Amino acid sequence: MNVAIVGGTGPQGRGLALRFARAGIPVTIGSRTVDRSIKTALELTDRLAGKHGAASITGASNIGAVAAAERIVLLAVPYEAHEDVLKGLIPSIQGKILVDIVVPLAPGNPRAVLMPSEGSATEAAQGLVGPDVPVVGALHNVSAHALNDLDQPINCDVLVAGNDSAAKHEVIKLLRLLEVDVYDAGPAASARCIEAITPILIRLNISKAVPFTHAGIRIWAPLQKAKTSSKSGEPLARYE
Amino acid sequence: MNVAIVGGTGPQGRGLALRFARAGIPVTIGSRTVDRSIKTALELTDRLAGKHGAASITGASNIGAVAAAERIVLLAVPYEAHEDVLKGLIPSIQGKILVDIVVPLAPGNPRAVLMPSEGSATEAAQGLVGPDVPVVGALHNVSAHALNDLDQPINCDVLVAGNDSAAKHEVIKLLRLLEVDVYDAGPAASARCIEAITPILIRLNISKAVPFTHAGIRIWAPLQKAKTSSKSGEPLARYE
Repeated sequence: MNVAIVGGTGPQGRGLALRFARAGIPVTIGSRTVDRSIKTALELTDRLAGKHGAASITGASNIGAVAAAERIVLLAVPYEAHEDVLKGLIPSIQGKILVDIVVPLAPGNPRAVLMPSEGSATEAAQGLVGPDVPVVGALHNVSAHALNDLDQPINCDVLVAGNDSAAKHEVIKLLRLLEVDVYDAGPAASARCIEAITPILIRLNISKAVPFTHAGIRIWAPLQKAKTSSKSGEPLARYE
Repeated sequence: MNVAIVGGTGPQGRGLALRFARAGIPVTIGSRTVDRSIKTALELTDRLAGKHGAASITGASNIGAVAAAERIVLLAVPYEAHEDVLKGLIPSIQGKILVDIVVPLAPGNPRAVLMPSEGSATEAAQGLVGPDVPVVGALHNVSAHALNDLDQPINCDVLVAGNDSAAKHEVIKLLRLLEVDVYDAGPAASARCIEAITPILIRLNISKAVPFTHAGIRIWAPLQKAKTSSKSGEPLARYE
């Protein structure tokens, strides 16, 4: 299994490329400018020098990265570019899964979202790529700083939303390789909430009233369910 | 300072009444049926017997509870009753602050929200009570189980949203007496996100794939800001 990261030269894309490659998953990062993605791929490869089991990071055009992906393409562009970039990928992405990590921050105000009429970026992406490409929203709330600080585990949980359950579970399985807790948050419409958590975190990060920065969210639940389902008597699978 | 809890005989209202009274804040719980609120108030008072410093819990009609509140009225009714109950409170709530904890769960499906056209229950409430009553959305993501289990601290953080900053800070100060971390999540529009977190938590709580129940969310941020503001040189106040 490999992955492509469209818009992979931005801070979020770079951090994800590092995390996936360190976990042994080859990454192709795409950019509008191939020179830039090749240069970034070399820089990131240098950062992983000496990490046992690290996989390759290579640079390509956005379309080239999508073509290189066996199955999963992550979209990590700024929201302004979301629609245009996606339109350019429609032919090459057929048969693959799109993981949309884009947050529709309001122009000029990262402390608010301005949702597209479809309800969320995830739902807008699904409308653009068509029904044959499952779109899964994920990774919206992870700060680029957290992703790039390889000395620390990712400091938050990942909520995943999408209408195609099989595709969503492929993505959940992949993301768990990054050693993070990943939760199925339901259908694509849940992305309306999940994407909107990010500007709330940004608001806290930049507020003088709060002592911390690079915040994430965690699901917090001290109480365990009963060990067996009351109906089937089967043990519960952890996080499945 | 005291508080009123409209719809205070439900599981959320009962738990909040217990937590506030235990913290020394007198509570009047309101119900459509005064007999029921008086009975509930006696039950809850019994549960606090022997707790040093606990304040009183009394029962009243919903309007009677609002009248008894010096300043802060919490609304804890099921979403089906949100509009009707609020309409009945319009005259008596003038000059007070409404804390709306109601989540617009989809009819028959607690794993989804069905937002009112105003965007959120908090914004709908503001439209109903008029501009002279500040509405603050809060406490949406705290499970009734967590509130009622007095042996444990509340297992999540509280995100607060509202357009009137002064009112919001009064509410934040009050809620911190419940020994919970409370964050200013921004304007009322942030409630579109915060209210919608609850059905995601409910989805996890009832999913056989997840080993825990009664989940909440926490803001998680290992990195501290610099100790002094770069502009003023003043130390940062914690969470203020």
